[in-house]
Amino acid sequence: MPANVIEEKLQQLGYTLPVLPTSKGIYKRCLVDGHHLYVSGHVSVNTDGSLITGKLGKELNEEQGAIAARQCGLAILSSIKDHFGNLGKIKRVIKLLGMVNATPDYEKHPLVINGCSELFVALWGEHNGKGVRSAVGMGSLPGNVAVEIEAIFEIE
Amino acid sequence: MPANVIEEKLQQLGYTLPVLPTSKGIYKRCLVDGHHLYVSGHVSVNTDGSLITGKLGKELNEEQGAIAARQCGLAILSSIKDHFGNLGKIKRVIKLLGMVNATPDYEKHPLVINGCSELFVALWGEHNGKGVRSAVGMGSLPGNVAVEIEAIFEIE
Amino acid sequence: MPANVIEEKLQQLGYTLPVLPTSKGIYKRCLVDGHHLYVSGHVSVNTDGSLITGKLGKELNEEQGAIAARQCGLAILSSIKDHFGNLGKIKRVIKLLGMVNATPDYEKHPLVINGCSELFVALWGEHNGKGVRSAVGMGSLPGNVAVEIEAIFEIE
Repeated sequence: MPANVIEEKLQQLGYTLPVLPTSKGIYKRCLVDGHHLYVSGHVSVNTDGSLITGKLGKELNEEQGAIAARQCGLAILSSIKDHFGNLGKIKRVIKLLGMVNATPDYEKHPLVINGCSELFVALWGEHNGKGVRSAVGMGSLPGNVAVEIEAIFEIE
Repeated sequence: MPANVIEEKLQQLGYTLPVLPTSKGIYKRCLVDGHHLYVSGHVSVNTDGSLITGKLGKELNEEQGAIAARQCGLAILSSIKDHFGNLGKIKRVIKLLGMVNATPDYEKHPLVINGCSELFVALWGEHNGKGVRSAVGMGSLPGNVAVEIEAIFEIE
Repeated sequence: MPANVIEEKLQQLGYTLPVLPTSKGIYKRCLVDGHHLYVSGHVSVNTDGSLITGKLGKELNEEQGAIAARQCGLAILSSIKDHFGNLGKIKRVIKLLGMVNATPDYEKHPLVINGCSELFVALWGEHNGKGVRSAVGMGSLPGNVAVEIEAIFEIE
């Protein structure tokens, strides 16, 4: 896909790629292996890079959780753009692991992670924007972020 | 493997592929990438598609948990059959992530996830039915299901 | 890399590969698929194979957690050596999933999992020792271990 198409779509949707917070973790944000792009777990951040925190089932509702998940998706795009210089290399989503910071009785993780999946479908379409997925509840997440998402993409 | 061998084995074992519950999640149940089949997290369901719910260490014991995990495995097979039309394409299990809905002090996750692994070994044998695995405790799972399992298979 | 280089480095660092505890789980510790080595979740063990247990945020602090994560990394190396006969086949780390047994309000998972990542960087260098990663908090882990880590490596 031409390098600027995805960024134009993001602009039309009114979304801005967030500043990525510095991390004390020892890892790469992105790693290319053949035709796969592996992406580290990205936490929910606001556009300025500040963390979106809180637990689903306690401080946050589904709508807030879905926004947090969308921001994880935008943070992933931010890392991909850093890595390749643009967003044109992504062919399709293969797999997402959507991790929700939730109370023990929380039940609506899929609706939360949909915030990221809807973004990816808006960018790459119904077929290529949708991969396999698990949407599950973690006991805790770094910095008490609301959502963390890791991903595998196919690249061209 | 001839397309009907696995289904005959399932019949001999007395197992029925469950009806898959409709999901509000935006994802594919199965995705083929080269010689890999990626499978989404599948939740524990009864044959009629109703959820098997509850936490290990609270409402459910190991035996009930292992049945829930086996039902996740059967749900995975149900999705694979939907995708390919039969179960003959699977060559071997590469990887399972077995996620158990458990109390904070629960310790026997491997015995629970064995319910799925035993099914896969019964179907594809000691070598091809057994892949790498993590069997771990989630803080919460969608719909309060007892177990959720995602998988990667090698296909022919 | 010559088969004995990594073992010499381990010796220089003063680390010993732990005895692996027997597991009741039905899985392979390592599985080769093309140029990938998939490794099962390995739990935190002492050199003698006894479990390192406890929750971060309760019984264990960051420093103890990082040691537990390093021991997961050494346990992974132990399995790889069992599988191939030596440690010379590993080309680079592709992906780690670092799972921390933690209280619901715990926030420093990346510092814990760094214990494993630092080991891998010490062995394979800044580029090849560092892959993508998620460092997250589980509700519970088998045998109440402090940390469990699964991995994907590229092999030569």
